[in-house]
Amino acid sequence: MGQYRVLIDANDEKGLVHKVSTIFFNEDLNILSNSEFVDKENNKFFMRSVVDGEIQAYKLKEQIVQALPNSSRVEVIEPKKKNIIIMATKEMHALGDILVRHEAGELEANILAVISNYDILESFVSKFNIQYITVSHVDLDRQTHEAKVLEELAKFEDIDYIVLAKYMRILTPSFVEAYEDKIINIHHSFLPAFIGANPYKQAYERGVKIIGATSHFVNNNLDEGPIIAQEVIHVNHAYSWRDMQRSGKDVEKVVLSRALKLALEDRIFVYQNKTVIF
Amino acid sequence: MGQYRVLIDANDEKGLVHKVSTIFFNEDLNILSNSEFVDKENNKFFMRSVVDGEIQAYKLKEQIVQALPNSSRVEVIEPKKKNIIIMATKEMHALGDILVRHEAGELEANILAVISNYDILESFVSKFNIQYITVSHVDLDRQTHEAKVLEELAKFEDIDYIVLAKYMRILTPSFVEAYEDKIINIHHSFLPAFIGANPYKQAYERGVKIIGATSHFVNNNLDEGPIIAQEVIHVNHAYSWRDMQRSGKDVEKVVLSRALKLALEDRIFVYQNKTVIF
Amino acid sequence: MGQYRVLIDANDEKGLVHKVSTIFFNEDLNILSNSEFVDKENNKFFMRSVVDGEIQAYKLKEQIVQALPNSSRVEVIEPKKKNIIIMATKEMHALGDILVRHEAGELEANILAVISNYDILESFVSKFNIQYITVSHVDLDRQTHEAKVLEELAKFEDIDYIVLAKYMRILTPSFVEAYEDKIINIHHSFLPAFIGANPYKQAYERGVKIIGATSHFVNNNLDEGPIIAQEVIHVNHAYSWRDMQRSGKDVEKVVLSRALKLALEDRIFVYQNKTVIF
Amino acid sequence: MGQYRVLIDANDEKGLVHKVSTIFFNEDLNILSNSEFVDKENNKFFMRSVVDGEIQAYKLKEQIVQALPNSSRVEVIEPKKKNIIIMATKEMHALGDILVRHEAGELEANILAVISNYDILESFVSKFNIQYITVSHVDLDRQTHEAKVLEELAKFEDIDYIVLAKYMRILTPSFVEAYEDKIINIHHSFLPAFIGANPYKQAYERGVKIIGATSHFVNNNLDEGPIIAQEVIHVNHAYSWRDMQRSGKDVEKVVLSRALKLALEDRIFVYQNKTVIF
Repeated sequence: MGQYRVLIDANDEKGLVHKVSTIFFNEDLNILSNSEFVDKENNKFFMRSVVDGEIQAYKLKEQIVQALPNSSRVEVIEPKKKNIIIMATKEMHALGDILVRHEAGELEANILAVISNYDILESFVSKFNIQYITVSHVDLDRQTHEAKVLEELAKFEDIDYIVLAKYMRILTPSFVEAYEDKIINIHHSFLPAFIGANPYKQAYERGVKIIGATSHFVNNNLDEGPIIAQEVIHVNHAYSWRDMQRSGKDVEKVVLSRALKLALEDRIFVYQNKTVIF
Repeated sequence: MGQYRVLIDANDEKGLVHKVSTIFFNEDLNILSNSEFVDKENNKFFMRSVVDGEIQAYKLKEQIVQALPNSSRVEVIEPKKKNIIIMATKEMHALGDILVRHEAGELEANILAVISNYDILESFVSKFNIQYITVSHVDLDRQTHEAKVLEELAKFEDIDYIVLAKYMRILTPSFVEAYEDKIINIHHSFLPAFIGANPYKQAYERGVKIIGATSHFVNNNLDEGPIIAQEVIHVNHAYSWRDMQRSGKDVEKVVLSRALKLALEDRIFVYQNKTVIF
Repeated sequence: MGQYRVLIDANDEKGLVHKVSTIFFNEDLNILSNSEFVDKENNKFFMRSVVDGEIQAYKLKEQIVQALPNSSRVEVIEPKKKNIIIMATKEMHALGDILVRHEAGELEANILAVISNYDILESFVSKFNIQYITVSHVDLDRQTHEAKVLEELAKFEDIDYIVLAKYMRILTPSFVEAYEDKIINIHHSFLPAFIGANPYKQAYERGVKIIGATSHFVNNNLDEGPIIAQEVIHVNHAYSWRDMQRSGKDVEKVVLSRALKLALEDRIFVYQNKTVIF
Repeated sequence: MGQYRVLIDANDEKGLVHKVSTIFFNEDLNILSNSEFVDKENNKFFMRSVVDGEIQAYKLKEQIVQALPNSSRVEVIEPKKKNIIIMATKEMHALGDILVRHEAGELEANILAVISNYDILESFVSKFNIQYITVSHVDLDRQTHEAKVLEELAKFEDIDYIVLAKYMRILTPSFVEAYEDKIINIHHSFLPAFIGANPYKQAYERGVKIIGATSHFVNNNLDEGPIIAQEVIHVNHAYSWRDMQRSGKDVEKVVLSRALKLALEDRIFVYQNKTVIF
């Protein structure tokens, strides 16, 4: 009944491709694209296929699960717009890039809302007819503030991804666990260099000749979640840290949008704090 | 009886992966890696698998050919050193890069000889205990010179690739046809910009901000063969064309060595003047 | 009475830096930055200084002009927002990138208006409270349409730059002459490769492994004006030309915004169909 | 009596360019190129000029020193081949790249010798008619081994630079102090990420999408000396750490050779553990 993205994650063994392709063949599915990867060190098999044909998603999934008893993930996904929440603080560049892409129809996503701890970006976001929710952190301890954010998030059903578009607050473990592998962050350095606060200033102090940005899923170790995408630009001695920051913004927005696109197209597998990306 | 690289090029139809993976499964082969690509526009299917097991190469090939009557290429290759001839003129950088890699054991190749129209590089090449053949073009017309080069080449059996490491003479159609899809050239521009003579001077005159190099198979249209690899570097107004030439050398040698490595690992499919590279 | 950008373009001769720096010294100016370049081939000297002090711009200019009788350009510019007009057709990405930067306060520019031959982008541009002028080309010959565009442009005084953010119509010589070295275009290829229509399709057909974008001033030879900035991304056989087009958009917008920033900061000298950029 | 490179490092104050350019003018020197940089944060002025004329180097230096009482470095250097020692361990790629460049006449350097703690590279280096000195570390403590290396180095007068082309042993503070700002190292990571042993394995474990190499002057904090040059390449999940290592070699050699070239051309200023590079 259409097109499906089939994602498989299993312990590696002989015959996996044969078993899956036999199902595709028997069900008369057309394979539009097919990618596989075997992590030999960890004996793990990953596969992403895009197929086309007359079968219901749940039935296809059933067959694959049955054929692959050692799988840890089998998903048969109908391509459709995913629901995302964007969280931001004060900066416009990464947020703006996503909003313009959304407006241009480039993103397979519905933006449910933008949540910020300031109201600074409200008038900007409102131009795009997207709900803006300010949850101020002023005079609140971290837990209380976050509880209020979680409360706002709870009003939305089916959040596929939360995109931290330069949201400058650290999330607590309970928040992160509630949305495991669903929170995509942009860190303004070439991780693992310059973890933590003001990486551009750190980069400037160190005298690096290249700066970068890293998009990653958030886990409970600061800036140490699975990396999705990275990009860099060359700098030189004439860059103040403010110049690095300004130039860095262009990399940040490109990398975050690239990571988001990969997520929306169901191209990312997470395991062992790393990503496999097809 | 070991490891094989299986290369398949066929008209696309449903069930190709199924058929091939069924053979692999029945023969109890272990799939080490597997890449596929379908060119929907031209309805062409490409597959490269690395498998491991107890079957003879020719038997595996037979089965695949039989199962895929619409295939145009089925190869089952045992990984081993390929035989290459390098052709050069006066410049040392691209040639030297290949010789050092060879010396370091990085290349799956035996260098049978270096052929040049000058003797300038002879003492350099001799350091590496590689045969150097000078075929001077002085006072010879193109045909006669080339006939002499072909004569030298004919002395070697089983030449897998001829690598033009800045060989600055144009080859005639008969030469090219004799070694179709076997001659790898490095052109010192980002093709198709600056086809022909002195591309750095052309780039300088045009005032470009990026220069590049292109490695491609040679066909009978100057600098228009199937592209294997390209790379670029940034330049600016302060570069004279000599500066571009100097900086360009670093890109040229990297790109040529990268293309050669892809060829030696049987990763390249050529069709319709393009390459599919796994 | 503040900060000035001093731009000098002169025939090269001994003592130019001495003469200019003597003026700066005598007027007690602080040099914040200083860049020079000598094109030896053409015997041309270029200098851009940023200075700070108590002198009026016209007086500083007078002194420099007097000291450098062989100069062809001497400008003493007070940094302030420049007036720009953006021209677009249907695509949102390059236009949107400039609008968001403008909104974020990143650009030293007032956007006077967006002019398009379609009304498609009107609702988008209106979000940013920027005037949108549709000048439809339907049923008009090129001259007549352009006359109407020029009429609209004539309503604005002091246009510093016209930014063609994917304006998909060719400008006539009279238009170009009216705004010489003031029209900044983004071409969706790595010029001079793929001049003309649908460069992504040309790139796809050629099987390139890298695609790019080029921002340049517009002159009367199609896609042959002085290049300001270029950037590239890697592609592979799996990219359809539509994929190249999609990925290319990210490069286009980055390159156009970079070129615009250079222009707004008075960093570009144009001569002999090339640029010197400090 | 020829061409000089003039390097100046001074506390910043008004009139520095004026003073220096006045000397150049009075001495009738032709300025071939001129670069300046002011570090406003630290109030430091840097200048590199290439001039041409009829004056003796020491006289030009005298005048500049006299005119700039607050300078911390004034050098007037006649371009000539510098003397370098290369230190290596077992790997051929970075060493080989320098040797081939030397052979091709690309380097402004005499290679006095290659020193290694193994004899593995001896036959390779000998091809290039360069002295190879093995100083085995086997059964020696670090101090004793280093004393023997220093003893070998002491046999050479006027060593301008020591190039660590993948010399895999840590130098002690006394060694480093003996050759301050003269030891150029290549570290096989994008510093400051992955300091220390086996950075490719660290990069693999972390799941980065980009790897790099860093060339820097050696100081007494491991991998923390002033950075001269950095470069990166993209990797993905399919790279084992061995693959990263293999691909990384190409970046390492390019970056080391680039840093060496900058040093040989007297383009590097070191201060506050950073470099200014003209």
